[in-house]
Amino acid sequence: MSRDGIAELARRRGFLWLSFEIYGGAAGFYDYGPLGAMLKRRVEEAWRNFYLKEGFYEIETTNVAPGEIFEASGHLESFTDRAVVCKHCKSFFRVSEGVDVHEKCPECGGELESAGEFNLMFQTRIGVPKGERDEEAQKKSEGYLRPETAQGIFLNFQRLLRFNRDKLPFGVIQIGKAYRNEISPRKSLIRLREFTMAEAEVFVVPGEKNDHPRFDEVKDRKLWFVPNDGEEGEKSVEEAVRSGIIANEYLGYHIAKVEEFLERIGIPQDKLRFRQHRQDEMAHYARDCWDAEFFSDRYGWMEIVGVADRGDYDLSSHASHSNTDMGVHVQMQAREGEAEKAKVIPHVIEPSYGIDRIIYALLESSFYEEQVGKEKRKVLRFKNEIAPIIAAVFPLLNRDELKNKAREVFQQLRNESIFVEYDDSGSIGRRYRRQDEIGTPYCITIDYETLEDDTVTIRERDTMKQVRVPIGEVKDVLVVAL
Amino acid sequence: MSRDGIAELARRRGFLWLSFEIYGGAAGFYDYGPLGAMLKRRVEEAWRNFYLKEGFYEIETTNVAPGEIFEASGHLESFTDRAVVCKHCKSFFRVSEGVDVHEKCPECGGELESAGEFNLMFQTRIGVPKGERDEEAQKKSEGYLRPETAQGIFLNFQRLLRFNRDKLPFGVIQIGKAYRNEISPRKSLIRLREFTMAEAEVFVVPGEKNDHPRFDEVKDRKLWFVPNDGEEGEKSVEEAVRSGIIANEYLGYHIAKVEEFLERIGIPQDKLRFRQHRQDEMAHYARDCWDAEFFSDRYGWMEIVGVADRGDYDLSSHASHSNTDMGVHVQMQAREGEAEKAKVIPHVIEPSYGIDRIIYALLESSFYEEQVGKEKRKVLRFKNEIAPIIAAVFPLLNRDELKNKAREVFQQLRNESIFVEYDDSGSIGRRYRRQDEIGTPYCITIDYETLEDDTVTIRERDTMKQVRVPIGEVKDVLVVAL
Repeated sequence: MSRDGIAELARRRGFLWLSFEIYGGAAGFYDYGPLGAMLKRRVEEAWRNFYLKEGFYEIETTNVAPGEIFEASGHLESFTDRAVVCKHCKSFFRVSEGVDVHEKCPECGGELESAGEFNLMFQTRIGVPKGERDEEAQKKSEGYLRPETAQGIFLNFQRLLRFNRDKLPFGVIQIGKAYRNEISPRKSLIRLREFTMAEAEVFVVPGEKNDHPRFDEVKDRKLWFVPNDGEEGEKSVEEAVRSGIIANEYLGYHIAKVEEFLERIGIPQDKLRFRQHRQDEMAHYARDCWDAEFFSDRYGWMEIVGVADRGDYDLSSHASHSNTDMGVHVQMQAREGEAEKAKVIPHVIEPSYGIDRIIYALLESSFYEEQVGKEKRKVLRFKNEIAPIIAAVFPLLNRDELKNKAREVFQQLRNESIFVEYDDSGSIGRRYRRQDEIGTPYCITIDYETLEDDTVTIRERDTMKQVRVPIGEVKDVLVVAL
Repeated sequence: MSRDGIAELARRRGFLWLSFEIYGGAAGFYDYGPLGAMLKRRVEEAWRNFYLKEGFYEIETTNVAPGEIFEASGHLESFTDRAVVCKHCKSFFRVSEGVDVHEKCPECGGELESAGEFNLMFQTRIGVPKGERDEEAQKKSEGYLRPETAQGIFLNFQRLLRFNRDKLPFGVIQIGKAYRNEISPRKSLIRLREFTMAEAEVFVVPGEKNDHPRFDEVKDRKLWFVPNDGEEGEKSVEEAVRSGIIANEYLGYHIAKVEEFLERIGIPQDKLRFRQHRQDEMAHYARDCWDAEFFSDRYGWMEIVGVADRGDYDLSSHASHSNTDMGVHVQMQAREGEAEKAKVIPHVIEPSYGIDRIIYALLESSFYEEQVGKEKRKVLRFKNEIAPIIAAVFPLLNRDELKNKAREVFQQLRNESIFVEYDDSGSIGRRYRRQDEIGTPYCITIDYETLEDDTVTIRERDTMKQVRVPIGEVKDVLVVAL
């Protein structure tokens, strides 16, 4: 497996392109080319269906929000990174392992000094401030690009509760852009300034966090845990919850679901681990947080999903800042066994997925180079569920009678809403290689036998084996594979 | 049909919610609740499939972009509105019909004076400027939220051309957020500061604009045209192109496709017209532009789609600002009938859809109130293609044996990826009313007969008629309807 191989292939084949490249590019921004956009869309669709099946609702809220939202959420105060500046070349760097005031400048070797805390939100101004543009009006017009999609869900909590007929627990999902004005991102997909998050916020009665109704469905799943104290190792979710490594069943259930989803779309299980945040790296809103980390050949262990227990932090903050009642009446078991109504602020369990990093992980872990005869075959072994293109249809030779028949088969499959491609340029071998490189699971070839008996060959990407099937059965072969 | 009726229903049933409402809301920002998000997703999916069938590619580019992009695109100079300010109460207003310096302040009746031109882009700053924060560094770090998705496509033109194997014409689509920092938007879906656009950019050889290969498929479609000189009236697309009302076949073809799409998702044809922009309202990049306008009972004629001929404006501007070659070698017919290669800058034809306004148009034009017995029935007559929920499954009575069977049918349909809902609360009549209000085409009821012979009743939303079918055939009834 080659690291540069996949980066080069991703650019050449239209998966990922550096944004604004004709103007020299900009660190922290990437575009999805045609195949990347299709891959991303399929991953998002798989994610959405996965959580809709949990009975969750999807909503869509805004990217821009007024400053008071982030005053309440704590992001204005706490969503910051420490920076250092080089005394010599004036370059700024984010303080991290390897870069701190006592180190040397990574650019010129000069001396570094502290440059203070930087808030990571992109700031903007909403509208033309009314009245004289005095300090208060300026302040009121401050807006920010959201650093997470979650706040839009919290702000609508009361309406969502009513939509769920005033019952807890319930879950709400959102897929959308989020933004972090990183101090010094490199030109890679790993630390983006604009990225796509897929987040689920699960609202639960605080006293019921240890009683997830479907915990049994996940309890035997074995994961690799790296707790912030104690030894790392493989454990079942049930063991991890019972032994106190994971704080409660809800958190355990959602950690297990994260792994189930990642495995389903094709992230290899042996490249995944769940690492608990240390107290000093936890977000300001989190009581506990576990990262799903993917082992990248290029970058080492990297976070691709975070699962946090946010407690009542967000709802309580918004309740007091907006002077709104976020309490919910719930049935509680009283001591004598009789039910009584109590008012609680729900707790929030949040699985938060970084879609772009997942796309990177899929590209890297699906990429294989192998010797076939005297050629090197490059192939993306995407699962059928996420492959951008399901099948390609080829005429064996560049002759009208074969091309017409191939176009007919192509159109037939498109009409069945199966996303297929047509290709008649270059040798058949070259066309196979091209489809291997973009991860297409099947190639359908029309030859002279097709004109006689209406059969085609279907070549499978990974085994490179071919079978001959009647045209009428092609759809079934592809659909079964889905 | 009642205008307030649909606004109230859209809020109550979870289609559209004013953003940040617990903080008093903010003009120009709306959230999609669970049903609104589902409706929007289905409209976007229909749109995507419509243009993918044209053979177009989808890409995804960034919301934030450096200032130099918009210097090149002309938006920094020309994407502006004139504003006036009230001398008395200091309120700002956008100059429009009804508000100008010689009018009175709409808020307090005071005297207005000019407040100059305001750029409508949201400004932000990307990263920590390197080196001393002098004027040049500040300037370099300026960024903006995109006012249209189109620029991201133009910037990737060369890569997209290569992806299309260096051949013209080709089309590229993008669905995503765009932003306009409106001076004084009201609290409605019509003038949003953050909105979703769905845009297609079609790149064509300038000399071939009058030769669309599939013009025949649309030429007989009859539309209502309002040209900027000459009389309005109904004409076929072919008549409109031949008589010079529409400048060329490509523009005509795409105007016809816009109408085909809008009709397909359920915008009534008799509420649509195509109005040509006057010279003084045309965007700075446009040579010609036609708006698809929807007649709203509440707002009158409103733009929901624009179809522009952008000529070579964007590619030529980016070519000179970024010093990049945007030329394409194409075969030209020389005078003696021999082909020769020439280099051209492609022209761009652009259908640009405002998804939020289309959602509003769908809600308004699908909404009916009708007397049924002594009750008023409120119903959203969505087409099956876009209804958020396809069918609801009910037990007739609140008894365990019926509820269990109903849940089984519900799960069976969900497993077939049909988006159904389960509901057992309240009377059956109330449950029908609720589904009518959210536009669900079918209600499936499980009763005691079901337990005997495995049949259910299916009630159709618009006719309110019921048929009894075997459970095994339910799927076919729904799928045929899709």
